Amino acid sequence: MTEIPTLAEVKEAAVRIAPYAHRTPVLTCRSLNEMTGATIFFKCENLQKVGAFKFRGACNTVFSLTDEEASRGVATHSSGNHAAALALAARLRGIRAHVVMPKNTKKVKKEAVESYGAQITYCEPTLEAREETLVGILEETGAVEIHPYNDPRIIAGQGTAAMELMEEIHDLDVILTPVGGGGLISGTALTVSGLGHAAEVIGVEPKGADDSCRSFYSGELIPSVNPRTIADGLLTSLGDLTFAIIRKHVADIVTVEEDEIISAIRTVWERMKIIIEPSSAVPVAAVLNYKVETVGKKVGIILTGGNVDLEKMPW
Amino acid sequence: MTEIPTLAEVKEAAVRIAPYAHRTPVLTCRSLNEMTGATIFFKCENLQKVGAFKFRGACNTVFSLTDEEASRGVATHSSGNHAAALALAARLRGIRAHVVMPKNTKKVKKEAVESYGAQITYCEPTLEAREETLVGILEETGAVEIHPYNDPRIIAGQGTAAMELMEEIHDLDVILTPVGGGGLISGTALTVSGLGHAAEVIGVEPKGADDSCRSFYSGELIPSVNPRTIADGLLTSLGDLTFAIIRKHVADIVTVEEDEIISAIRTVWERMKIIIEPSSAVPVAAVLNYKVETVGKKVGIILTGGNVDLEKMPW
Repeated sequence: MTEIPTLAEVKEAAVRIAPYAHRTPVLTCRSLNEMTGATIFFKCENLQKVGAFKFRGACNTVFSLTDEEASRGVATHSSGNHAAALALAARLRGIRAHVVMPKNTKKVKKEAVESYGAQITYCEPTLEAREETLVGILEETGAVEIHPYNDPRIIAGQGTAAMELMEEIHDLDVILTPVGGGGLISGTALTVSGLGHAAEVIGVEPKGADDSCRSFYSGELIPSVNPRTIADGLLTSLGDLTFAIIRKHVADIVTVEEDEIISAIRTVWERMKIIIEPSSAVPVAAVLNYKVETVGKKVGIILTGGNVDLEKMPW
Repeated sequence: MTEIPTLAEVKEAAVRIAPYAHRTPVLTCRSLNEMTGATIFFKCENLQKVGAFKFRGACNTVFSLTDEEASRGVATHSSGNHAAALALAARLRGIRAHVVMPKNTKKVKKEAVESYGAQITYCEPTLEAREETLVGILEETGAVEIHPYNDPRIIAGQGTAAMELMEEIHDLDVILTPVGGGGLISGTALTVSGLGHAAEVIGVEPKGADDSCRSFYSGELIPSVNPRTIADGLLTSLGDLTFAIIRKHVADIVTVEEDEIISAIRTVWERMKIIIEPSSAVPVAAVLNYKVETVGKKVGIILTGGNVDLEKMPW
């Protein structure tokens, strides 16, 4: 385990990424407030660069590298938003990004990573193949591996979303985020606690990928086994670093059902006119279905991303 | 023709609607800038209350009524966003709204207007039937008719969107809006010119509903005859008041093809992660297809609404 980042590192990350990242809007929605009895403030990271909060952590990490490290390029294995985020961050710094992707990665995700100029290597769709292929690339190129979440620079970067949210809304009672590898929630919880804010940070997971919830309640890191959920950003297991932060600073982790996620996606699209990906809908589903006590409270929700495949749309 | 509103009236409208309307975000998108060679600032009225800029004008008008007028309620015929906007504005003032809608109005639009508590009267789907039915309601109830666009209070209200945009972005070269009845573009053009800004205001219409373009170039108000376009908010003809303002203050009106509109909708959904309705995509299509000289320029686009039927989505 590397070290838990400090609030100072979150603040440094905010300064470091400011020239590159969007300061995303915080939206409210009267009808969602009426439906839930809460007053909800949505931090719209679906409107972030590459369509996901992941750009914050990747950008902070890439711009934290020494010139020597940067000159070797960066590498990761990812089929999702971290790959696109790292690719764009590397392009902005003018360095190489190597991304290992499983062969069965969706076309739209491949194209996004390609469009940012990353070198993609395809492999079999297993974790072993991904890790092996990445090791080969690291040996061959000398690139610096950038882990998607179990890295203090990534965590500090992700914490900047909550920092911006709290700069706008000072008296939140609760902040909700989804939990995948735990980078976002640990960055959020660190930032809230570091700033001395009273808001409780609560994680939400799909019932079909509830490893963090089980880890949280058992006190032991339980890896994800055959997770199944439409929220494809939340299939990963926690890391030792993110788990340590979650145990210390997160108030609770709750779960939602698949049909609740699907209904929440649609509610946000219809009522808020913004596109969110399934992972983003997970905390929304928790509020809509009273999985968290939010009636009468001021609730911050980080909408994590908006990358969906529109191929199936009616045109 | 009633009187052309002044800049002072736009400023009063801004104050009047401030407690009720969203100050919508101005978004930028790197990939759309790369695709067009312009620097585009999107004023996101799709994220406005009721999902459309129409709330600005309706809210300004309803809250401009005297108590005596308000006590009689308001009425309009509309199958679209004006109906929902008027219904919500009336509810916020605590007065009645009567809305005449054609029988074939889409379910989702009916439900929106109902949900705001308006009294809906259905009629045959012809302009004559709509107008006749409305006259009956006005006689019966004494309600005040609120025209969707040919009204100085509506126009002043719509002008507040451009005012907010220019408060954030000071040096726009061009501002683009779609043109339906002309309420938005005339409010926009009045505000730009009133503030002494150098930006050119240019309207964009679907080729299949190009009555404003033809009116603009002929100098005579040519009504829309059998307009056909996916941009269902732009089927209406100009009014004498909006046409007078357009002739005086609008630099040009250009047209786009249906396939260009459809492609622009999808580009915005995919790249910006926001839901826009077809009418909103019309000015975007103009920039994407170089119908307006925008390369190297700072371009404001008012995204007018986000009300689409998601029934056909893949779930």
